[in-house]
Amino acid sequence: MKVVKFGGSSLASGEQLEKVFNIVVSDPERKIVVVSAPGKRYPEDIKVTDMLIACAEQVLEKGEAGEYVDDVIQRYSSIASELNLSQDIIERITDDLLQLLSDQSIKRDRFLEAVKASGEDNNAKLVAAYFQSKGVEAHYINPKDAGLIVSDEPGNAQVLPETYDHLYKLREKSGILIFPGFFGYTRSGDIVTFSRSGSDITGSIVANGVKASVYENFTDVDAVYSVNPNIVKNPKEIKELTYREMRELSYAGFSVFHDEALMPAFRAEIPVHVKNTNNPDAAGTRIVNERQNQNGPVIGIASDGGFCSIYVSKYLMNREIGFGRHLLQILEEFGLSYEHLPSGIDDISIILRQNQLGFGSEKDILQRIKEELKADEVKIQHNLSLIMVVGEGMRCNVGTMARAAEALAQIGVNIEMINQGSSEVSMMFGVNETDEKKAVNALYEEFFAGVTV
Amino acid sequence: MKVVKFGGSSLASGEQLEKVFNIVVSDPERKIVVVSAPGKRYPEDIKVTDMLIACAEQVLEKGEAGEYVDDVIQRYSSIASELNLSQDIIERITDDLLQLLSDQSIKRDRFLEAVKASGEDNNAKLVAAYFQSKGVEAHYINPKDAGLIVSDEPGNAQVLPETYDHLYKLREKSGILIFPGFFGYTRSGDIVTFSRSGSDITGSIVANGVKASVYENFTDVDAVYSVNPNIVKNPKEIKELTYREMRELSYAGFSVFHDEALMPAFRAEIPVHVKNTNNPDAAGTRIVNERQNQNGPVIGIASDGGFCSIYVSKYLMNREIGFGRHLLQILEEFGLSYEHLPSGIDDISIILRQNQLGFGSEKDILQRIKEELKADEVKIQHNLSLIMVVGEGMRCNVGTMARAAEALAQIGVNIEMINQGSSEVSMMFGVNETDEKKAVNALYEEFFAGVTV
Repeated sequence: MKVVKFGGSSLASGEQLEKVFNIVVSDPERKIVVVSAPGKRYPEDIKVTDMLIACAEQVLEKGEAGEYVDDVIQRYSSIASELNLSQDIIERITDDLLQLLSDQSIKRDRFLEAVKASGEDNNAKLVAAYFQSKGVEAHYINPKDAGLIVSDEPGNAQVLPETYDHLYKLREKSGILIFPGFFGYTRSGDIVTFSRSGSDITGSIVANGVKASVYENFTDVDAVYSVNPNIVKNPKEIKELTYREMRELSYAGFSVFHDEALMPAFRAEIPVHVKNTNNPDAAGTRIVNERQNQNGPVIGIASDGGFCSIYVSKYLMNREIGFGRHLLQILEEFGLSYEHLPSGIDDISIILRQNQLGFGSEKDILQRIKEELKADEVKIQHNLSLIMVVGEGMRCNVGTMARAAEALAQIGVNIEMINQGSSEVSMMFGVNETDEKKAVNALYEEFFAGVTV
Repeated sequence: MKVVKFGGSSLASGEQLEKVFNIVVSDPERKIVVVSAPGKRYPEDIKVTDMLIACAEQVLEKGEAGEYVDDVIQRYSSIASELNLSQDIIERITDDLLQLLSDQSIKRDRFLEAVKASGEDNNAKLVAAYFQSKGVEAHYINPKDAGLIVSDEPGNAQVLPETYDHLYKLREKSGILIFPGFFGYTRSGDIVTFSRSGSDITGSIVANGVKASVYENFTDVDAVYSVNPNIVKNPKEIKELTYREMRELSYAGFSVFHDEALMPAFRAEIPVHVKNTNNPDAAGTRIVNERQNQNGPVIGIASDGGFCSIYVSKYLMNREIGFGRHLLQILEEFGLSYEHLPSGIDDISIILRQNQLGFGSEKDILQRIKEELKADEVKIQHNLSLIMVVGEGMRCNVGTMARAAEALAQIGVNIEMINQGSSEVSMMFGVNETDEKKAVNALYEEFFAGVTV
C-alpha cells in the first residue's frame, strides 16, 4: 500500500487534478491520497490558504469576510467547472465555509486554525468528488474520524502516539481514501495545524500509521537537486539518498522538504519517493534508510546564511569542570538554540542563527557570559554562512576533507570554522556570507564534475 | 630583573652547580634563582624527591626512615664535597631533615607534603651556601617569609592572590636570592606542594610577583622542539612562540612544560625563555605574548593518545533547547571534564580522556545519557589520539587545512574528527591511536620540510 501526497501546485487547477487522478489510478497500490489546499497556478497567483487567512482576519476585524470569501469559493468553483463536476460539491464547500466563518461559538484563538485548515479539508472533499465522478470508488476521510490526534500547539502541532494505531485501521477501508493534509485534532476535539509544509507531515504520519510500502511525495520538481539551483546552474539530480543525508541537507537551506516532516516516515523506515506531478515518468528521488554508495563520497551540498559565532576564551578553560554546562545554561535562559560548539583548549565558540538575537539581548548575553564565567574574552562574529557537504560515502573516504579544503583554498575562501566528526555523513564549513556562493560553486565543481549521483 | 629557574638535572651534581653559578653571575639582572631538588645525574639515578617519598613512606610504615635518610643526605654531601663547601651546610640540612622526619606533632596527612618539599628547600640552602662560598652575596629565601601563600590542596596547590604583593618586596633585597621551588604555605602555615613540575610554577609565580623582565627557565634541552623527538627524528627547534601556541602544544603531549606552570607569567605578560644549562650559549626558545610570524603557518605539532569519544544521536536534536546543557550536566555529575564537542545536526560527540572512565562508570554514563535524553543512539569509541597542529600563522593562511588534510589522505589515515574554528591558532585532528605516529610524521613533513621556525 502506498501513501501519495500532492502539494498545492499539483492541485491548483482542474488540469492539475486530472494529472493527479491519472497518477493515482495508474497504480492500484496508491490507496491513500493526502492533499494540500489549491496552490498557485502561476507565480502571481494567491494560494487558497493565504486567501483563507485574509478571510479570517477580515472576520476578526470587521465581523464579516465580505468578498474575501467569494475569492475562496471561486477557486474551488473554477476547478470544479474545469472538471465538469456537479454543483453539489461547491455547495457543500460553500456551506461548510460560511458556517465556519459565522460560528460565534468558536473561540477566537481557535478560529484562525479552523479557517486555515478548511483549505485542505474542503480540497479533500473536492478531490474525492472528482474521483467519484470518474467512476472510481473514493472517500473523503475526516482526520477526526480517522483519529489523527495532535498536541494543542497551534501552528506547531505534534502527533500523539495513539494516532498510529488509529490510522492503521484505514487499511480496512475500501476504495481510494482522500485525506486532507496540514492539521489534526486535539484530544478535546479542536483543530490544530502543523507547522509549515504541514501536508508533508500529514502524509508522513499516515504512511507510518498504515505502514505503507512507500510514501510518495508529488511536487513540481523532477528530483531533489544536489545543490541549490539558485547558486549552481543546472545541478545534478539525486536519485537516492538516505534520511540522514536528507536531514543534513534540509538543515542548511534545502527547501524541498521541511525536514521535520520526514520524522514519522523515518521512524517507521518507510522510503519516501519525491516525484513530479507534471512529469510522473521522471525517476524522482528516493529517500531511504540505507543506500548503496556507488558514486562519489558527496551526494549534496547545502548552505545557509544568517549565522553568528560567539567566541569565549578563558585560560585553562578545559580544566574547569562545568564551564560548558554553565555556558549552555546561559543560552538556555535566553531561549537560544545553538547549532555547533567548536572548541579549542582555552576557548569555545557557539554557532547560532543570529535572528534569535535582538540587539538588546546580544549585549546582555555577552555580558552574562563574561561576568558569570569570568571569561578572558567574549566576542561575536556576525554574518556567517554554513555550508554542509553531505554524503554517506564520506564515512570511508579518506581524502574528502582534503579535497574540500583544497577547493576552498584555491579560490581564496577562508574557512572560519570546520565541524567534522560527530555526524559521519557531513562536513560543515563556516565561511563569511560574502563567500558563500563562491564556496558552494567551488565545492560543487570539485565533487560533482563528471559524477552521477 | 630576571627570575631564573633551574630544573633537577641542572642541580644534580657539583659540576652542574658550577654551570648554574656561572650562568647566574654572568648577568647582573639574574637576581632571583628558583631551584628544584637535585635530579638525576644519569638515567638510572634516583631523584632526591623520589628518595624523600620513600623516606616518608618508610617512616609512616615502620616509624623510622632507616638508611633511606642516609641516601638523601649522601646526595647533598656529595654535591657539597665536589664544591669544597664546609660541613656546616650538610649539618644544617641533616638537622632539618631528621627533625622533620621525627616530628610527632605534624599530622600524618601533612607529613608527606613537608618531606617532599624539603628536597627543594634544602637544595636552596645548599645553593645559597655555594654561591656565598664563591664570594657572592646570596641568600636562601624561605617561601613562608616571602609570603608565597597557596590554597590547601595537597599536591595541587593554587597560588592565592595576596602572594604577588608579598613577593614584590623581594625586589628590595640585596644579593642573589635563592628560592626553593615546588611548594608554598597555606594561610594557616602548612606546607602544600604544587602539582607536577611544581618548580616551574614557583618560578612563574615569583616572576609575576617581582614583575621580572623575563622568566628564564633552564632545563637540559637546547630548545622547545617543533614536534616530539620520539616521533620525528631531529625535529626543528622553535626560536619563538606565543603563550597561546605553547598552551595548545602543551595540551597534547609536549612535555617541556606543565602548561599550567606558565599561567602566572602569562597573566603578567612576562616572556619565558627556555634555555639549556649545559649549553647556555644556545639561543633557546622564547615564549612571548605576541610574535612576528615570519615563517610557515605552523610552529609545532603535538599529539597524545588515550582519548575516547561518546557519540550521541537523536533525530531533531538541534531543535531541542537544553539538550547540550543536559548532556554536559550528566558529565559534570560524573566529575568528567571533556575536551571537545564536535556536533552535527542530530548528533554530538564528547571527546574526553578515557582514563577518567572506570569500566563501571562508562556503562552508567551511557545509560543515563540514553535514558534521560531519550537519545536514539549512544556509543563510545576508544583509543583515539588527538593531533594538534599549532601556529599563529594559520589565522591568515587559507590553505593550511587543505595541506594538513591532504597530507593525511596521502598516507591513508582516516580523520575521525576535526575541530577547527574556535581557537584560531590550532587545528585538531582525531585519528586512531594506531595511526598517530604515521600521521604526525606526515604533517611534520608537510609543514616543516625546508622551513625555519
